[in-house]
Amino acid sequence: MIRGKFVTLEGGEGVGKTTNLEFIRDYLQSHGIRFLVTREPGGTPIGEAIRRLIIESQGMVAQTELLLMFAARAQHLEEVIKPALAEGLWVVSDRFTDASYAYQGGGRGIDTGVIRFLEDWLQKGLEPDLTFLFDAPVEIGLRRARDRGGLDRFESERPAFLSRVRETYRELAQRWPHRIKLLDATRPLAEVQADIAEHLDSLRQR
Amino acid sequence: MIRGKFVTLEGGEGVGKTTNLEFIRDYLQSHGIRFLVTREPGGTPIGEAIRRLIIESQGMVAQTELLLMFAARAQHLEEVIKPALAEGLWVVSDRFTDASYAYQGGGRGIDTGVIRFLEDWLQKGLEPDLTFLFDAPVEIGLRRARDRGGLDRFESERPAFLSRVRETYRELAQRWPHRIKLLDATRPLAEVQADIAEHLDSLRQR
Repeated sequence: MIRGKFVTLEGGEGVGKTTNLEFIRDYLQSHGIRFLVTREPGGTPIGEAIRRLIIESQGMVAQTELLLMFAARAQHLEEVIKPALAEGLWVVSDRFTDASYAYQGGGRGIDTGVIRFLEDWLQKGLEPDLTFLFDAPVEIGLRRARDRGGLDRFESERPAFLSRVRETYRELAQRWPHRIKLLDATRPLAEVQADIAEHLDSLRQR
Repeated sequence: MIRGKFVTLEGGEGVGKTTNLEFIRDYLQSHGIRFLVTREPGGTPIGEAIRRLIIESQGMVAQTELLLMFAARAQHLEEVIKPALAEGLWVVSDRFTDASYAYQGGGRGIDTGVIRFLEDWLQKGLEPDLTFLFDAPVEIGLRRARDRGGLDRFESERPAFLSRVRETYRELAQRWPHRIKLLDATRPLAEVQADIAEHLDSLRQR
Protein backbone atom coordinates (compact mmCIF):
# COMPACT_ATOMS: atom_id res chain seq x y z
CA MET A 1 0.00 0.00 0.00
CA ILE A 2 1.38 3.40 -0.98
CA ARG A 3 1.31 5.62 2.06
CA GLY A 4 2.14 9.28 2.46
CA LYS A 5 4.46 10.60 5.15
CA PHE A 6 3.26 12.22 8.34
CA VAL A 7 5.27 15.24 9.51
CA THR A 8 4.52 17.27 12.64
CA LEU A 9 5.82 20.56 14.02
CA GLU A 10 6.10 21.06 17.76
CA GLY A 11 7.42 23.65 20.14
CA GLY A 12 6.48 26.44 22.51
CA GLU A 13 5.44 29.98 21.68
CA GLY A 14 7.42 32.26 19.37
CA VAL A 15 9.83 29.57 18.17
CA GLY A 16 9.12 30.13 14.47
CA LYS A 17 6.72 27.29 13.74
CA THR A 18 4.68 29.38 11.31
CA THR A 19 7.67 30.62 9.32
CA ASN A 20 9.14 27.16 9.09
CA LEU A 21 5.80 25.67 8.11
CA GLU A 22 5.93 27.98 5.07
CA PHE A 23 9.41 26.73 4.31
CA ILE A 24 8.23 23.09 4.47
CA ARG A 25 5.31 23.94 2.21
CA ASP A 26 7.68 25.45 -0.37
CA TYR A 27 10.03 22.48 -0.09
CA LEU A 28 7.25 19.94 -0.73
CA GLN A 29 5.85 21.98 -3.61
CA SER A 30 9.23 22.30 -5.29
CA HIS A 31 9.74 18.54 -4.99
CA GLY A 32 6.37 17.78 -6.55
CA ILE A 33 5.04 16.08 -3.43
CA ARG A 34 1.26 16.11 -2.92
CA PHE A 35 0.54 17.20 0.64
CA LEU A 36 -1.91 18.89 2.94
CA VAL A 37 -1.20 21.22 5.83
CA THR A 38 -3.34 21.01 8.94
CA ARG A 39 -3.21 21.83 12.63
CA GLU A 40 -4.17 20.75 16.12
CA PRO A 41 -6.35 21.36 17.87
CA GLY A 42 -8.42 21.82 14.72
CA GLY A 43 -8.10 20.45 11.21
CA THR A 44 -11.83 19.67 10.83
CA PRO A 45 -14.97 21.78 11.39
CA ILE A 46 -15.61 19.91 14.66
CA GLY A 47 -11.96 20.26 15.67
CA GLU A 48 -11.93 24.00 14.94
CA ALA A 49 -15.07 24.42 17.08
CA ILE A 50 -13.29 22.56 19.88
CA ARG A 51 -10.23 24.78 19.40
CA ARG A 52 -12.33 27.91 19.87
CA LEU A 53 -13.92 26.42 22.97
CA ILE A 54 -10.50 25.63 24.47
CA ILE A 55 -9.03 29.04 23.70
CA GLU A 56 -12.05 31.13 24.69
CA SER A 57 -13.25 29.33 27.82
CA GLN A 58 -12.44 30.44 31.32
CA GLY A 59 -11.95 28.15 34.29
CA MET A 60 -11.59 24.98 32.22
CA VAL A 61 -10.17 22.14 34.33
CA ALA A 62 -7.08 20.28 33.08
CA GLN A 63 -8.91 16.98 32.52
CA THR A 64 -11.49 18.71 30.30
CA GLU A 65 -8.73 20.38 28.31
CA LEU A 66 -6.98 17.04 27.72
CA LEU A 67 -10.21 15.26 26.70
CA LEU A 68 -11.11 18.08 24.30
CA MET A 69 -7.66 17.88 22.70
CA PHE A 70 -8.12 14.16 22.12
CA ALA A 71 -11.74 14.61 20.96
CA ALA A 72 -10.50 16.99 18.25
CA ARG A 73 -7.64 14.59 17.46
CA ALA A 74 -9.99 11.60 17.04
CA GLN A 75 -12.02 13.51 14.47
CA HIS A 76 -8.86 14.78 12.77
CA LEU A 77 -7.40 11.27 12.48
CA GLU A 78 -10.52 9.68 11.01
CA GLU A 79 -11.69 12.53 8.81
CA VAL A 80 -8.38 13.93 7.52
CA ILE A 81 -5.09 12.31 8.51
CA LYS A 82 -5.75 8.62 7.85
CA PRO A 83 -7.61 9.11 4.54
CA ALA A 84 -4.91 11.48 3.26
CA LEU A 85 -2.03 9.15 4.19
CA ALA A 86 -3.90 6.22 2.63
CA GLU A 87 -4.16 8.22 -0.61
CA GLY A 88 -0.42 8.80 -0.54
CA LEU A 89 -0.50 12.46 0.46
CA TRP A 90 2.01 13.83 2.93
CA VAL A 91 0.31 15.33 5.96
CA VAL A 92 2.02 18.24 7.73
CA SER A 93 0.42 19.09 11.05
CA ASP A 94 1.15 22.10 13.23
CA ARG A 95 1.16 20.16 16.53
CA PHE A 96 -0.03 16.64 17.33
CA THR A 97 0.06 14.25 20.31
CA ASP A 98 3.50 15.34 21.56
CA ALA A 99 1.82 18.65 22.43
CA SER A 100 -0.59 16.82 24.77
CA TYR A 101 2.38 15.36 26.65
CA ALA A 102 4.05 18.77 26.79
CA TYR A 103 1.11 21.06 27.62
CA GLN A 104 -1.43 18.90 29.44
CA GLY A 105 1.12 16.44 30.84
CA GLY A 106 4.19 18.53 31.68
CA GLY A 107 2.40 21.88 31.87
CA ARG A 108 -0.78 20.96 33.73
CA GLY A 109 0.43 17.85 35.51
CA ILE A 110 -1.94 15.29 33.98
CA ASP A 111 -0.72 11.72 34.54
CA THR A 112 1.29 10.57 31.52
CA GLY A 113 -0.35 7.14 31.73
CA VAL A 114 -3.71 8.68 30.85
CA ILE A 115 -2.24 10.44 27.80
CA ARG A 116 -0.52 7.23 26.71
CA PHE A 117 -3.81 5.29 27.11
CA LEU A 118 -5.71 7.74 24.89
CA GLU A 119 -2.89 7.83 22.33
CA ASP A 120 -2.82 4.02 22.09
CA TRP A 121 -6.60 3.78 21.86
CA LEU A 122 -6.97 6.35 19.07
CA GLN A 123 -3.77 5.98 17.11
CA LYS A 124 -3.16 2.24 17.39
CA GLY A 125 0.48 2.71 16.49
CA LEU A 126 0.01 5.47 13.92
CA GLU A 127 2.57 8.14 14.72
CA PRO A 128 4.44 10.85 12.82
CA ASP A 129 7.29 9.72 10.57
CA LEU A 130 9.15 12.91 11.43
CA THR A 131 8.64 15.59 14.06
CA PHE A 132 10.43 18.92 14.14
CA LEU A 133 10.76 20.28 17.66
CA PHE A 134 11.61 23.98 17.56
CA ASP A 135 13.36 24.73 20.82
CA ALA A 136 14.19 28.07 22.39
CA PRO A 137 14.42 29.40 25.95
CA VAL A 138 11.03 30.47 27.25
CA GLU A 139 12.00 34.17 27.57
CA ILE A 140 13.09 34.38 23.94
CA GLY A 141 9.96 32.69 22.65
CA LEU A 142 7.71 34.86 24.80
CA ARG A 143 9.37 38.05 23.66
CA ARG A 144 8.89 37.05 20.02
CA ALA A 145 5.26 36.05 20.58
CA ARG A 146 4.59 39.34 22.36
CA ASP A 147 6.20 41.37 19.56
CA ARG A 148 3.92 39.66 17.07
CA GLY A 149 0.70 40.66 18.84
CA GLY A 150 -1.60 39.66 21.68
CA LEU A 151 -0.85 36.52 23.66
CA ASP A 152 -3.43 33.73 23.64
CA ARG A 153 -4.46 31.61 26.61
CA PHE A 154 -1.44 29.32 26.42
CA GLU A 155 1.04 32.07 25.57
CA SER A 156 -0.01 34.05 28.62
CA GLU A 157 0.59 31.17 31.04
CA ARG A 158 3.19 31.82 33.71
CA PRO A 159 6.85 31.20 32.80
CA ALA A 160 6.96 28.18 35.17
CA PHE A 161 4.24 26.50 33.09
CA LEU A 162 6.02 27.29 29.85
CA SER A 163 9.31 25.97 31.26
CA ARG A 164 7.67 22.66 32.14
CA VAL A 165 6.25 22.50 28.60
CA ARG A 166 9.72 23.07 27.14
CA GLU A 167 11.36 20.52 29.42
CA THR A 168 8.77 17.88 28.53
CA TYR A 169 9.28 18.51 24.84
CA ARG A 170 13.06 18.10 25.31
CA GLU A 171 12.54 14.86 27.21
CA LEU A 172 10.36 13.52 24.39
CA ALA A 173 13.10 14.37 21.87
CA GLN A 174 15.65 12.50 23.99
CA ARG A 175 13.35 9.52 24.25
CA TRP A 176 12.44 9.30 20.55
CA PRO A 177 15.55 10.65 18.78
CA HIS A 178 14.86 8.76 15.58
CA ARG A 179 11.48 10.48 15.12
CA ILE A 180 11.84 13.84 16.89
CA LYS A 181 14.47 16.24 15.57
CA LEU A 182 15.25 18.97 18.09
CA LEU A 183 16.20 22.19 16.29
CA ASP A 184 17.79 25.07 18.17
CA ALA A 185 15.45 27.86 17.09
CA THR A 186 17.71 30.64 18.35
CA ARG A 187 20.07 30.13 15.40
CA PRO A 188 19.77 32.13 12.15
CA LEU A 189 16.74 31.02 10.15
CA ALA A 190 18.87 29.87 7.20
CA GLU A 191 20.68 27.37 9.44
CA VAL A 192 17.45 26.02 10.91
CA GLN A 193 15.98 25.62 7.44
CA ALA A 194 19.06 23.87 6.10
CA ASP A 195 18.51 21.27 8.85
CA ILE A 196 14.84 20.98 7.98
CA ALA A 197 15.63 20.40 4.30
CA GLU A 198 18.19 17.75 5.20
CA HIS A 199 15.67 15.82 7.33
CA LEU A 200 13.03 16.10 4.61
CA ASP A 201 15.57 14.85 2.05
CA SER A 202 16.16 11.69 4.07
CA LEU A 203 12.45 11.21 4.75
CA ARG A 204 11.76 11.29 0.98
CA GLN A 205 14.27 8.51 0.50
CA ARG A 206 12.92 6.30 3.27
CA MET B 1 -17.97 15.09 56.66
CA ILE B 2 -21.58 15.91 55.83
CA ARG B 3 -22.21 14.96 52.22
CA GLY B 4 -25.26 15.38 50.03
CA LYS B 5 -26.75 12.55 48.03
CA PHE B 6 -26.19 12.09 44.32
CA VAL B 7 -29.23 10.96 42.32
CA THR B 8 -29.25 10.35 38.57
CA LEU B 9 -31.99 9.71 36.00
CA GLU B 10 -31.32 7.46 33.05
CA GLY B 11 -33.25 5.97 30.19
CA GLY B 12 -33.95 6.19 26.50
CA GLU B 13 -36.16 8.65 24.66
CA GLY B 14 -39.77 9.37 25.65
CA VAL B 15 -39.64 7.40 28.92
CA GLY B 16 -40.83 10.28 31.11
CA LYS B 17 -37.54 11.52 32.54
CA THR B 18 -38.61 15.17 32.43
CA THR B 19 -41.97 14.58 34.13
CA ASN B 20 -40.40 12.46 36.83
CA LEU B 21 -37.62 14.97 37.36
CA GLU B 22 -40.34 17.48 38.27
CA PHE B 23 -41.79 14.95 40.70
CA ILE B 24 -38.36 14.47 42.35
CA ARG B 25 -37.94 18.23 42.58
CA ASP B 26 -41.30 18.56 44.37
CA TYR B 27 -40.45 15.65 46.68
CA LEU B 28 -37.14 17.20 47.76
CA GLN B 29 -38.70 20.63 48.24
CA SER B 30 -41.52 19.27 50.37
CA HIS B 31 -38.98 17.43 52.55
CA GLY B 32 -36.90 20.56 53.07
CA ILE B 33 -33.85 19.09 51.33
CA ARG B 34 -31.40 21.54 49.70
CA PHE B 35 -30.64 20.35 46.20
CA LEU B 36 -29.67 21.32 42.69
CA VAL B 37 -30.88 19.90 39.41
CA THR B 38 -28.44 19.55 36.54
CA ARG B 39 -27.93 17.55 33.38
CA GLU B 40 -25.43 15.81 31.11
CA PRO B 41 -24.00 16.57 28.77
CA GLY B 42 -24.11 20.09 30.16
CA GLY B 43 -24.42 21.46 33.65
CA THR B 44 -21.74 24.15 33.20
CA PRO B 45 -21.20 26.83 30.52
CA ILE B 46 -18.40 24.72 29.01
CA GLY B 47 -20.54 21.59 29.23
CA GLU B 48 -23.51 23.27 27.57
CA ALA B 49 -21.25 24.44 24.71
CA ILE B 50 -20.05 20.85 24.33
CA ARG B 51 -23.67 19.66 24.36
CA ARG B 52 -24.54 21.98 21.47
CA LEU B 53 -21.49 20.79 19.56
CA ILE B 54 -22.50 17.15 20.02
CA ILE B 55 -26.12 17.70 19.05
CA GLU B 56 -25.50 20.03 16.11
CA SER B 57 -22.46 18.43 14.46
CA GLN B 58 -22.63 16.15 11.49
CA GLY B 59 -20.28 13.26 10.81
CA MET B 60 -18.86 13.12 14.33
CA VAL B 61 -16.98 9.87 14.92
CA ALA B 62 -17.88 7.73 17.93
CA GLN B 63 -14.56 8.27 19.71
CA THR B 64 -14.97 12.04 19.49
CA GLU B 65 -18.50 11.79 20.87
CA LEU B 66 -17.30 9.72 23.84
CA LEU B 67 -14.40 12.06 24.60
CA LEU B 68 -16.67 15.11 24.42
CA MET B 69 -19.13 13.47 26.83
CA PHE B 70 -16.31 12.88 29.32
CA ALA B 71 -14.85 16.35 28.73
CA ALA B 72 -18.20 17.87 29.72
CA ARG B 73 -18.42 15.43 32.66
CA ALA B 74 -14.96 16.36 33.98
CA GLN B 75 -15.95 20.03 34.09
CA HIS B 76 -19.33 19.16 35.62
CA LEU B 77 -17.74 17.08 38.37
CA GLU B 78 -15.16 19.68 39.38
CA GLU B 79 -17.25 22.82 38.97
CA VAL B 80 -20.69 21.65 40.15
CA ILE B 81 -21.16 18.09 41.44
CA LYS B 82 -18.27 17.71 43.89
CA PRO B 83 -18.57 21.19 45.44
CA ALA B 84 -22.36 20.80 45.87
CA LEU B 85 -22.08 17.36 47.48
CA ALA B 86 -19.33 18.64 49.78
CA GLU B 87 -21.65 21.44 50.91
CA GLY B 88 -24.33 18.86 51.71
CA LEU B 89 -26.63 19.58 48.78
CA TRP B 90 -28.33 16.76 46.96
CA VAL B 91 -27.44 16.71 43.28
CA VAL B 92 -30.04 15.42 40.81
CA SER B 93 -28.63 14.90 37.33
CA ASP B 94 -30.56 14.10 34.18
CA ARG B 95 -28.09 11.47 32.89
CA PHE B 96 -24.55 10.66 33.99
CA THR B 97 -21.90 8.01 33.24
CA ASP B 98 -24.36 5.14 32.79
CA ALA B 99 -25.48 6.98 29.65
CA SER B 100 -21.96 6.73 28.22
CA TYR B 101 -22.05 2.95 28.64
CA ALA B 102 -25.52 2.81 27.07
CA TYR B 103 -25.15 5.25 24.15
CA GLN B 104 -21.45 5.29 23.26
CA GLY B 105 -20.75 1.74 24.52
CA GLY B 106 -23.86 -0.27 23.65
CA GLY B 107 -25.17 2.06 20.95
CA ARG B 108 -21.98 2.99 19.10
CA GLY B 109 -19.88 -0.03 20.01
CA ILE B 110 -17.05 1.72 21.88
CA ASP B 111 -15.02 -0.72 23.98
CA THR B 112 -16.36 -0.78 27.54
CA GLY B 113 -12.81 -0.89 28.89
CA VAL B 114 -12.18 2.62 27.53
CA ILE B 115 -15.32 3.95 29.23
CA ARG B 116 -14.37 2.25 32.50
CA PHE B 117 -10.85 3.75 32.27
CA LEU B 118 -12.19 7.29 31.85
CA GLU B 119 -14.78 6.77 34.60
CA ASP B 120 -12.14 5.57 37.06
CA TRP B 121 -9.75 8.36 36.16
CA LEU B 122 -12.29 11.17 36.56
CA GLN B 123 -14.59 9.88 39.27
CA LYS B 124 -12.12 7.99 41.47
CA GLY B 125 -14.96 6.00 43.03
CA LEU B 126 -17.51 8.83 43.14
CA GLU B 127 -20.75 7.41 41.81
CA PRO B 128 -24.46 8.09 42.22
CA ASP B 129 -26.08 6.97 45.46
CA LEU B 130 -29.26 6.19 43.54
CA THR B 131 -30.05 5.91 39.84
CA PHE B 132 -33.56 5.70 38.39
CA LEU B 133 -33.60 3.85 35.11
CA PHE B 134 -36.85 4.54 33.24
CA ASP B 135 -37.40 1.60 30.96
CA ALA B 136 -39.84 1.19 28.09
CA PRO B 137 -39.82 -0.63 24.77
CA VAL B 138 -38.12 1.44 22.07
CA GLU B 139 -41.30 1.81 19.96
CA ILE B 140 -43.30 3.24 22.87
CA GLY B 141 -40.59 5.72 23.81
CA LEU B 142 -40.11 6.81 20.21
CA ARG B 143 -43.82 7.39 19.71
CA ARG B 144 -43.95 9.56 22.82
CA ALA B 145 -40.84 11.50 21.83
CA ARG B 146 -42.28 12.07 18.36
CA ASP B 147 -45.63 13.27 19.74
CA ARG B 148 -43.80 15.81 21.87
CA GLY B 149 -42.03 17.44 18.89
CA GLY B 150 -38.98 17.08 16.64
CA LEU B 151 -36.50 14.30 17.30
CA ASP B 152 -32.93 15.24 18.13
CA ARG B 153 -29.81 13.51 16.85
CA PHE B 154 -30.01 10.63 19.33
CA GLU B 155 -33.77 10.26 19.15
CA SER B 156 -33.63 9.90 15.39
CA GLU B 157 -31.10 7.05 15.48
CA ARG B 158 -32.31 3.80 13.97
CA PRO B 159 -34.35 1.46 16.20
CA ALA B 160 -31.46 -1.05 16.26
CA PHE B 161 -29.25 1.59 17.89
CA LEU B 162 -31.94 2.48 20.42
CA SER B 163 -32.51 -1.21 21.21
CA ARG B 164 -28.82 -1.66 21.99
CA VAL B 165 -29.00 1.41 24.24
CA ARG B 166 -31.97 -0.05 26.10
CA GLU B 167 -30.36 -3.48 26.47
CA THR B 168 -27.16 -1.97 27.84
CA TYR B 169 -29.12 0.05 30.37
CA ARG B 170 -30.95 -3.10 31.47
CA GLU B 171 -27.65 -4.96 31.83
CA LEU B 172 -26.26 -2.16 34.00
CA ALA B 173 -29.34 -2.38 36.24
CA GLN B 174 -28.84 -6.12 36.61
CA ARG B 175 -25.20 -5.63 37.42
CA TRP B 176 -25.68 -2.86 40.00
CA PRO B 177 -29.11 -3.60 41.52
CA HIS B 178 -28.34 -1.85 44.77
CA ARG B 179 -27.70 1.48 43.01
CA ILE B 180 -29.81 1.32 39.83
CA LYS B 181 -33.59 0.99 40.22
CA LEU B 182 -35.22 -0.14 37.01
CA LEU B 183 -38.71 1.34 36.73
CA ASP B 184 -41.17 0.06 34.15
CA ALA B 185 -42.14 3.34 32.55
CA THR B 186 -45.15 1.91 30.70
CA ARG B 187 -47.14 1.77 33.93
CA PRO B 188 -49.46 4.58 35.04
CA LEU B 189 -47.46 7.60 36.21
CA ALA B 190 -48.85 7.40 39.77
CA GLU B 191 -47.41 3.91 40.18
CA VAL B 192 -44.01 4.93 38.85
CA GLN B 193 -43.94 7.93 41.16
CA ALA B 194 -44.96 5.86 44.20
CA ASP B 195 -41.83 3.76 43.53
CA ILE B 196 -39.68 6.86 43.15
CA ALA B 197 -40.92 8.25 46.47
CA GLU B 198 -40.22 4.96 48.20
CA HIS B 199 -36.63 4.86 46.95
CA LEU B 200 -36.11 8.49 47.94
CA ASP B 201 -37.54 7.73 51.40
CA SER B 202 -34.95 5.01 51.94
CA LEU B 203 -32.14 7.14 50.56
CA ARG B 204 -32.99 9.92 53.04
CA GLN B 205 -32.63 7.43 55.86
CA ARG B 206 -29.30 6.00 54.72
